[in-house]
Amino acid sequence: MVVRSVDLRSDTVTRPTDAMREAMASAEVDDDILGYDPTARHLEEEMAKMMGKEAALFVPSGTMANLICVMVHCEVRGSEVILGDNSHIHVYENGGISTIGGVHPKTIKNEEDGTMDLEAIEAAIRDPKGSTFYPSTRLICLENTHANSGGRCLSAEYTDSVGEIAKRHGLKLHIDGARLFNASIALGVPVNRLVEAADSVSVCLSKGLGAPVGTVIVGSSGFIEKAKRLRKTLGGGMRQIGVLCAAALVALQENLPKLQFDHKKAKLLAEGLNQMKGIRINVAAVETNMIFMDMEDGSRLTAEKLRKCLTECGILVLPGNSPRKQCK
Amino acid sequence: MVVRSVDLRSDTVTRPTDAMREAMASAEVDDDILGYDPTARHLEEEMAKMMGKEAALFVPSGTMANLICVMVHCEVRGSEVILGDNSHIHVYENGGISTIGGVHPKTIKNEEDGTMDLEAIEAAIRDPKGSTFYPSTRLICLENTHANSGGRCLSAEYTDSVGEIAKRHGLKLHIDGARLFNASIALGVPVNRLVEAADSVSVCLSKGLGAPVGTVIVGSSGFIEKAKRLRKTLGGGMRQIGVLCAAALVALQENLPKLQFDHKKAKLLAEGLNQMKGIRINVAAVETNMIFMDMEDGSRLTAEKLRKCLTECGILVLPGNSPRKQCK
Amino acid sequence: MVVRSVDLRSDTVTRPTDAMREAMASAEVDDDILGYDPTARHLEEEMAKMMGKEAALFVPSGTMANLICVMVHCEVRGSEVILGDNSHIHVYENGGISTIGGVHPKTIKNEEDGTMDLEAIEAAIRDPKGSTFYPSTRLICLENTHANSGGRCLSAEYTDSVGEIAKRHGLKLHIDGARLFNASIALGVPVNRLVEAADSVSVCLSKGLGAPVGTVIVGSSGFIEKAKRLRKTLGGGMRQIGVLCAAALVALQENLPKLQFDHKKAKLLAEGLNQMKGIRINVAAVETNMIFMDMEDGSRLTAEKLRKCLTECGILVLPGNSPRKQCK
Amino acid sequence: MVVRSVDLRSDTVTRPTDAMREAMASAEVDDDILGYDPTARHLEEEMAKMMGKEAALFVPSGTMANLICVMVHCEVRGSEVILGDNSHIHVYENGGISTIGGVHPKTIKNEEDGTMDLEAIEAAIRDPKGSTFYPSTRLICLENTHANSGGRCLSAEYTDSVGEIAKRHGLKLHIDGARLFNASIALGVPVNRLVEAADSVSVCLSKGLGAPVGTVIVGSSGFIEKAKRLRKTLGGGMRQIGVLCAAALVALQENLPKLQFDHKKAKLLAEGLNQMKGIRINVAAVETNMIFMDMEDGSRLTAEKLRKCLTECGILVLPGNSPRKQCK
Repeated sequence: MVVRSVDLRSDTVTRPTDAMREAMASAEVDDDILGYDPTARHLEEEMAKMMGKEAALFVPSGTMANLICVMVHCEVRGSEVILGDNSHIHVYENGGISTIGGVHPKTIKNEEDGTMDLEAIEAAIRDPKGSTFYPSTRLICLENTHANSGGRCLSAEYTDSVGEIAKRHGLKLHIDGARLFNASIALGVPVNRLVEAADSVSVCLSKGLGAPVGTVIVGSSGFIEKAKRLRKTLGGGMRQIGVLCAAALVALQENLPKLQFDHKKAKLLAEGLNQMKGIRINVAAVETNMIFMDMEDGSRLTAEKLRKCLTECGILVLPGNSPRKQCK
Repeated sequence: MVVRSVDLRSDTVTRPTDAMREAMASAEVDDDILGYDPTARHLEEEMAKMMGKEAALFVPSGTMANLICVMVHCEVRGSEVILGDNSHIHVYENGGISTIGGVHPKTIKNEEDGTMDLEAIEAAIRDPKGSTFYPSTRLICLENTHANSGGRCLSAEYTDSVGEIAKRHGLKLHIDGARLFNASIALGVPVNRLVEAADSVSVCLSKGLGAPVGTVIVGSSGFIEKAKRLRKTLGGGMRQIGVLCAAALVALQENLPKLQFDHKKAKLLAEGLNQMKGIRINVAAVETNMIFMDMEDGSRLTAEKLRKCLTECGILVLPGNSPRKQCK
Repeated sequence: MVVRSVDLRSDTVTRPTDAMREAMASAEVDDDILGYDPTARHLEEEMAKMMGKEAALFVPSGTMANLICVMVHCEVRGSEVILGDNSHIHVYENGGISTIGGVHPKTIKNEEDGTMDLEAIEAAIRDPKGSTFYPSTRLICLENTHANSGGRCLSAEYTDSVGEIAKRHGLKLHIDGARLFNASIALGVPVNRLVEAADSVSVCLSKGLGAPVGTVIVGSSGFIEKAKRLRKTLGGGMRQIGVLCAAALVALQENLPKLQFDHKKAKLLAEGLNQMKGIRINVAAVETNMIFMDMEDGSRLTAEKLRKCLTECGILVLPGNSPRKQCK
Repeated sequence: MVVRSVDLRSDTVTRPTDAMREAMASAEVDDDILGYDPTARHLEEEMAKMMGKEAALFVPSGTMANLICVMVHCEVRGSEVILGDNSHIHVYENGGISTIGGVHPKTIKNEEDGTMDLEAIEAAIRDPKGSTFYPSTRLICLENTHANSGGRCLSAEYTDSVGEIAKRHGLKLHIDGARLFNASIALGVPVNRLVEAADSVSVCLSKGLGAPVGTVIVGSSGFIEKAKRLRKTLGGGMRQIGVLCAAALVALQENLPKLQFDHKKAKLLAEGLNQMKGIRINVAAVETNMIFMDMEDGSRLTAEKLRKCLTECGILVLPGNSPRKQCK
């Protein structure tokens, strides 16, 4: 008997489809550092259009995308960024915005649904013109979907409200949209509407969409110009990236329509699991493609036992932490 | 009639006493960068002894003292520090540990008494040997007295508990002791006992003690050696500092015994004010030399009105913010 | 008539071969961040073996490779690196070692052959144990071949001599080996011999070797462990990179033996061009795959005129600067 | 017999005069962080006027002054500064502009007289609007007098020429004027004329002028506003600094007119020493208050022997390095 593995660890553990592989094999490419790669241009234009922004830039990872966006908005020394205490940028990106970018983070509590209290955001802002004692707040970051709350979606209205606060105080708004397409599908709202208020957005193509490598940043032309230069400084400038962009273009065409099935399957699975003894799942919170399971208190079933048992059956899952810690 | 001003703004607004001025005028001095200033040596040895540490270093300010200590403990790139969300380092020092030092802050909620929950501290630690996704926690910072909670004192036992957590995980413990002498007086516990668990401490001589300028860092000889070099890099190396150190030595001798009277007067004043209509003070929280007043909800008396009225009577106070924001 | 373009701009302007495209299409891949990609493992092991080092790491670009190596060797704040004033790291990498890494560069004059005077190197070293006034020298960087001197080769003996200086003073030696394979072919010396004295080496697979994307860092296991973590911080951690590594493996097998023909063609072309009126080439200096042409003084032929004229004939070249500036 | 020591080590090894001590003892002071210290205001206004700039700021040291000025002019990440390879900032300030400020230095050879070749400066400028490969040049630094060339003076005309280059390319010009008053006296040109072209200047009061502590930065009001904030971040904000400023005001009044005698004595001493066997001095280069002695090649007298012998006679000197290394 052959046990086929069912891999539920993360939406980052994918394999390129045949169509992606075919696209990589036949992609038209050139030196992208010199600006000539036609497939990269094509992908970037496509993404800018979808997101309703002027320009786009392909970068090697979501971490670099967020790092670049924070550093460009906070290019003047002495900047502070307001972001969720449970956000991916704050928790899982090696503290790069401080240790590489020299930006001071001011965290606001992430509610269970991934939002931050609007009044708390506004109260945290410190005059960008500066004072003797404070850094200057220059940026607010949101994350949609919000990974550490189980992939929950931020509504367009919530995002607009944060955007208004930012505008009122002369700040920028960045959205870590690693799984923005999942939010769009789940909410039934176009991606460009979800990021209307944002000055920059990072969107991953290598998660649910299944492209092997790549994240795209979108923003104004001036912003992308600076982002491009910083990409080179950080070492994210690559040569014939058309091979990667070709796969990403297929991912957009082929897999975007399929994300809704991921969500339905996740919901179904969550409902089923929740009926099992010893397991506790907030089914209502399963809005997209993530399921966080807790072991019931007092249960003899521990998370580690369950993981081992599942692995033996060929079902792979990732151990989590408490409080909620799971890496994209 | 002469209205003499009663200045209650901050314990940083002082005037040197005649004895201090006399000491400055007659201080024996030399080039401290080259290591020759005898009065600086004297003060540093005195402070090291008092605090029960191997060595000490005079620096121009409490902000530089904290910055140096954090940067020396976190000298390896990719470090994270655990500290209170309402601590002076996090709120009032321009975010320097990130914007100058490249250190990532992980904040824990400061309770009303200035402590942080011990379990929360331990849960926040990220393996100093590092992982792919996390910075390495290398330091925990406490503040005693804790300014933003109204000058409340951390007990020796609490500090020891934090020190044990640090030790167990291979971390260092720094105490921002800008007003450590006030804590010592209020608790009736010697300063060296209060910092027994600490790897470094910064102590200001220019606040309640009334010296015109200066903070001293204490720690191991190796630590102070590194601190000295970083002091030069930041520009805190000065020449004939014996003039300042002489005043500080007088402050220690002359004013240290008088801190208790500051505390008594503060308590008395708090009790009196609290009986006035429209004003609300947590009298029990007035443990040292600070009084935070709130205006009662619904009162016609606003903080700004009160401040103006007091100013007209020659009584100076500082406007605060909500949540508690007051600068040392 | 069809004018086929002859593209002589840079060895970075390549197209993947059919074999590379085939390899990408059929590569076995997995999530490399989680450490599972088998093709990446294969390439890294292959490269470590070739270079005679313990371990290797695939990164998106030569710029990131150098940045990571400098930052890992100089992970302690206050570090200085000694490197050539005409080196790629100093001239063409956005000053990233300072602006991102906080490392202070001390430049030594690059001689015409890409070397630095040994005595000058030694005289520039500042005690890593530090002093009050100086940063600590922790690293020396060489570049082989040396791009800005026209692709000239550093001998194994010269490299050894620099390695001995480094060792004697407790410093590390990094080699920017973007075109190390070219040096190996031209000198007839195995690559591992050329980097014997080095603690780290970066080698590009996307230049003369023609892989679409990628550079590999080699060094000790401990060094690579740190490099891997910093790669994630900078955003160079990518997911299914097997597709890129597969192409790189083909490049090593297919194109490495062909580099010698590049060199022969370059030499032949240089000799021919040098006989043309108005053009001046140091033919002896054409050791590998680069040709730098100067216009003769007083000639009516300017560099810009020549470039335009060549472009019209379908021959593409890059304009240079004076003093020698050309980007890899 | 009493041997009185003759201390020729450095003009930083001074003792405050009786008048300075008296001024410190009677200085009117207040909390300078809150902006109230009247004596600091007085000194700053005085210095701004003397230097012909809008505003001034007292800082604890020359190193901090230079660090602040470079960091304010280069406040946008990715900046490069052009400065002399033998300048104090590059050689003796711990590499702080990179390790603290993240600024990339591009050094130009310092000629024997402390100047840099004008063409070399202009050729080194990299478009501040940036490119993919280069950092943006934003600042040029000069040093007057130039310590490592033996205290030689830069003329107003030379400084103007550098200022014109800066202006033409949209760059700023900073002058490290630690010993600017010495240059002014030696050249017979007012200080404000010597810095006419500069956007910022740092001037030490604790060297030849003999004040115990302090350097003043001058520049435009907007520049000083930013400098003040950065001073706080670095930890250079101090409380009752009037005590130091009072001494500095005396130094300006009392000692400025006496600098000419320092110069005359230095010249006389240099001429005398130069007639001694085994010692070589470039007497013409002794323009201000520094004497650099070389031992004649082949002489049995070594620098170390001479130093010891002088010390025994009560004459203190500092050992130098080759090439010229001497610390302010």
